Amino acid sequence: MGNGFASTPKPPYYAVIFTNQRSDGDHGYGATADRMVELAAQQPGYLGVESVRDASGLGITVSYWESEAAIQAWRRNAEHTLARERGRTDWYEHFELRVAKVERAYGGP
Amino acid sequence: MGNGFASTPKPPYYAVIFTNQRSDGDHGYGATADRMVELAAQQPGYLGVESVRDASGLGITVSYWESEAAIQAWRRNAEHTLARERGRTDWYEHFELRVAKVERAYGGP
Repeated sequence: MGNGFASTPKPPYYAVIFTNQRSDGDHGYGATADRMVELAAQQPGYLGVESVRDASGLGITVSYWESEAAIQAWRRNAEHTLARERGRTDWYEHFELRVAKVERAYGGP
Repeated sequence: MGNGFASTPKPPYYAVIFTNQRSDGDHGYGATADRMVELAAQQPGYLGVESVRDASGLGITVSYWESEAAIQAWRRNAEHTLARERGRTDWYEHFELRVAKVERAYGGP
């Protein structure tokens, strides 16, 4: 198993699939994104994250959580709420967020 | 909404989250990956796909499906089965695949 993979337990657990297109320029995005990764990892029920962005600015970040309640609590975190507001105004041309219950999983090869 | 986003209906529907690290060299990967995208789109119950790979070869592809039955049928597709076998032997250093039921979703900004 390499870097970039989340070590998740046996299902069921939850995934937040965040697909996003960054707008041009940093505008404080990088520092806040790093901080959110650090802060998320400290939340109760956090299981891990997988995140990829290509050169065009298209990104997919999937964070994994023990429960819907853990996702809701992270959503109410004040610093995260401010970051989401900046995301809407300054950082993302478009995003889609989906909350999903992981029912089965396997790895390989 | 830009390129790179799947137009999915109101939940519930299913997501297959495929996180993977490519090994070095193409070895026929690119042509087969293109073909699988084309073939998946022809399957009953297919809703869309979002896919990102960075310069290090780490990728996340999320495909969306109407039902678990649609995912299982695509899994049994003969050409897809051969491609998965080549993936295990030739293309991926590591992968994690998770099947999840999307319960809620929204977009923005």
